[in-house]
Amino acid sequence: MGNLNTQIIFRFLGITAILNGFFMFIAFPFSIYHEEAAKWGILNAGFVTVTIGLLLYFFNKPKSTNIQKKEGYLIVTLGWLTLSITGMLPYLFSGAIPNITNAFFETISGYSTTGSSILTNIEAMPKGILFWRSATHWIGGMGIIVLTIAILPLLGIGGMQLFMAEAPGPSTDKLHPRITDTAKRLYLIYVTLTLTQFLLLKIAGMTWFDAINHAMATMSTGGFSTKNSSIAFYNNLPFVQYIIIFFMLIAGTNFVLTYFALKGKIQKVFQSEEFKYYLFGIICIASIITIIIVHFQDATLQTSINHPMVFGKEESAIRHALFMVTSVVTTTGFVTADFTMWNFFATGIFFALFFTGGSAGSTSGGIKVVRHIVMLKNSFLEFKKALHPNAIIPVRYDKKAVNHNIVFNIISFFIIYMLIFIISSVILTLFGLDFISAIGAAASSLGNIGPAIGSVSPVDNFNHLTTAAKWFCSFLMLIGRLELFTVLILFTPFFWRKI
Amino acid sequence: MGNLNTQIIFRFLGITAILNGFFMFIAFPFSIYHEEAAKWGILNAGFVTVTIGLLLYFFNKPKSTNIQKKEGYLIVTLGWLTLSITGMLPYLFSGAIPNITNAFFETISGYSTTGSSILTNIEAMPKGILFWRSATHWIGGMGIIVLTIAILPLLGIGGMQLFMAEAPGPSTDKLHPRITDTAKRLYLIYVTLTLTQFLLLKIAGMTWFDAINHAMATMSTGGFSTKNSSIAFYNNLPFVQYIIIFFMLIAGTNFVLTYFALKGKIQKVFQSEEFKYYLFGIICIASIITIIIVHFQDATLQTSINHPMVFGKEESAIRHALFMVTSVVTTTGFVTADFTMWNFFATGIFFALFFTGGSAGSTSGGIKVVRHIVMLKNSFLEFKKALHPNAIIPVRYDKKAVNHNIVFNIISFFIIYMLIFIISSVILTLFGLDFISAIGAAASSLGNIGPAIGSVSPVDNFNHLTTAAKWFCSFLMLIGRLELFTVLILFTPFFWRKI
Repeated sequence: MGNLNTQIIFRFLGITAILNGFFMFIAFPFSIYHEEAAKWGILNAGFVTVTIGLLLYFFNKPKSTNIQKKEGYLIVTLGWLTLSITGMLPYLFSGAIPNITNAFFETISGYSTTGSSILTNIEAMPKGILFWRSATHWIGGMGIIVLTIAILPLLGIGGMQLFMAEAPGPSTDKLHPRITDTAKRLYLIYVTLTLTQFLLLKIAGMTWFDAINHAMATMSTGGFSTKNSSIAFYNNLPFVQYIIIFFMLIAGTNFVLTYFALKGKIQKVFQSEEFKYYLFGIICIASIITIIIVHFQDATLQTSINHPMVFGKEESAIRHALFMVTSVVTTTGFVTADFTMWNFFATGIFFALFFTGGSAGSTSGGIKVVRHIVMLKNSFLEFKKALHPNAIIPVRYDKKAVNHNIVFNIISFFIIYMLIFIISSVILTLFGLDFISAIGAAASSLGNIGPAIGSVSPVDNFNHLTTAAKWFCSFLMLIGRLELFTVLILFTPFFWRKI
Repeated sequence: MGNLNTQIIFRFLGITAILNGFFMFIAFPFSIYHEEAAKWGILNAGFVTVTIGLLLYFFNKPKSTNIQKKEGYLIVTLGWLTLSITGMLPYLFSGAIPNITNAFFETISGYSTTGSSILTNIEAMPKGILFWRSATHWIGGMGIIVLTIAILPLLGIGGMQLFMAEAPGPSTDKLHPRITDTAKRLYLIYVTLTLTQFLLLKIAGMTWFDAINHAMATMSTGGFSTKNSSIAFYNNLPFVQYIIIFFMLIAGTNFVLTYFALKGKIQKVFQSEEFKYYLFGIICIASIITIIIVHFQDATLQTSINHPMVFGKEESAIRHALFMVTSVVTTTGFVTADFTMWNFFATGIFFALFFTGGSAGSTSGGIKVVRHIVMLKNSFLEFKKALHPNAIIPVRYDKKAVNHNIVFNIISFFIIYMLIFIISSVILTLFGLDFISAIGAAASSLGNIGPAIGSVSPVDNFNHLTTAAKWFCSFLMLIGRLELFTVLILFTPFFWRKI
């Protein structure tokens, strides 16, 4: 590893493990309260994780606290792996998920805020384990906020520089003070929003336990539910579903915009090109189309509603359409109804939505709306350039000309994303999935969504996948979550070349 | 249309129609020889087409023979439409395909060298009509050679400038002399290769009629067969299949390279980066994987072979794998076996091959190998740029640095291609196709391949599609064939803005 500052890398990993362990200690009381056998497994996992963290921390004393780009990439990728490896200990030690492949899959699905599950009977799980499962989402979400808003722009990844131009905090290029300051402000928002949603869900009729779990899984755009039928369980509690829709929308919005909104600068939100396309261009239009589809699917509407409808059939159609569109676009992956059962067109629409992603700087995954905007504008300009080859016409975003390199960055991200999607689909067919499930699982894992199509549809789970397919999907969730480049750059020869 | 030189556009369309009509007169004797009722329909279609052509020619006397870019785009797109509209007359007048939607689909499938068919019993068709059907492929192939090698580079489309750097002919930027000279040399090759294949197929055991038809459908990478079971009909004639494999390979190779090879400059061929990736990187590797798959599919091998195997089972596996891989990569679309029946992995592999395309400057459709090379190299460089943001590192192709604008051009082509693919898949689900057939039909039509997956698999046809779906696929075949930009630019506002 030559001239890499490995000491500081391991120190960071140590801190990551220590924090992760503390969250396990928070899960412990839930298990005590419910008098579950799993409690000792969770406690032991916490002790082991904190101990690993302390060892990593104290045995690595960096001579310099200077972090270069290369260390940055390694900290991010290895940090996520440290979370995932220690994070599966509660499942393994408690015996809730005894198989390592399954435990790792469930854990990385948590931290990557994907929400795909191998559990076949969620409601039979110990409460402490379910809390821990939701906590992995929430911890992953915390990681992502700082990652996308403060770290990736400095690492020059996939055009992330562009999205974060206005991130709060002192505008210095030094990594440390900026991260600390930005992180504090955004974490405050993240915590506040989670608590607010938690209270609202409780008021709307959820239990305390379900409310805290679903709030954590919403704000992180994760999608793990404590119910076997996901949010379809609350089909007779429309307000619960509307609250989740609202908070999914916020979780899929750039946290910097939410920061401004909470400081009273609402006009900043509606000046944002990405927000306008996200809300009106994608969610509204897709919802309207879906409402029309659901409206004509009487049979499905009836089966998706277990209880007497509170506001009648029309409201139910609107609610399910809004919920499922928002859930997929924000890459949350909660489910109130199975869109693959509506009609072919619905499957088509939702599969296309698998590739939008939410806003940059949110906890959502996928390609992200801003990248689509820049790409489409650039493609459109190519026609103009074909007619006027010597004209220099820059792409404009948020009323400013976008630097050429950033456009290139974004386009390359999309190309790599699509190539990985295609190659992964083929690999998953090799690992035993049928073609439609393979493309569904690939798109869903890479986009950190959760449900897919085929045999991994919104009402199925990932338990029936082969071991190889589970590990491969785990890898896709990781690289998708870390914006591809962060992980993939570690596999390039120039990364390991000495400067 | 303001300042457009419409006179010269219509004059070109007139010439196109006249040439098209003459090919109908060539189809006529085939019908006479077989004493078919269809002969008068074909003859009348010829007269009507030539008359339309003569009217267009003589009523448009351009004041200037100067052709600007805008006229260029219009001539190309309207030229293909002129071919397709007049080209369906033999089907309609003879009553062979009485329905306009079906006739238009079959015709544009011919000229775009796609090879998707709505015919359910090909062998029951009049011979004159079958010849005409193959002729539409061959005419389309002629159009494409000149289009990609001589016209599109001048129009600045999708990086086509790059591929044709060494096109034979005087290196002037003036449209006229270059096109005429290049066209003459390449047509000579096209005709020679077609005749050679025709003779070889006859020697290998085909009838005269089948040999001429299959030769026309191979060199144009079209894929219409005169047999219901396509080339699986010749499963007991391995040499026929090997001859077709060989000529598909040539048809998918840049004709400029073939020109050099025929002039004895073989080293030029193997210096070409695109050719190496096309032959070794894609066809060889995909064939080896497919051979392994087919080898383990005993049952399929037996059913795909109607007659005693001439060289044994191993040879048969190699032949079918080579044939199907070459057929899909070159976008020909001939079929000896149904890859969707092998296993899920085969479907995955072949679906990925739907997106490679053959070489630029060949008659093949799709994205084309050279674009993938430039894109992948550029994406790879992005990782380097992330580490060294200030370094200027150009993409190198054929040992030369590629102009920045051309890289942009190529990448934009890919993005637009993938977006059209995704949107088209959704639209086809709206038009009644199930999801898997929709993505198959979209990828196959856009890439001018022919067979797809789902209900339009290699052993199915497109007859069961709804009328809307057939027209939509026709549109996809057209824009795919004309490298997207040529057609789509006509839908942009700046095209119609006066200079």
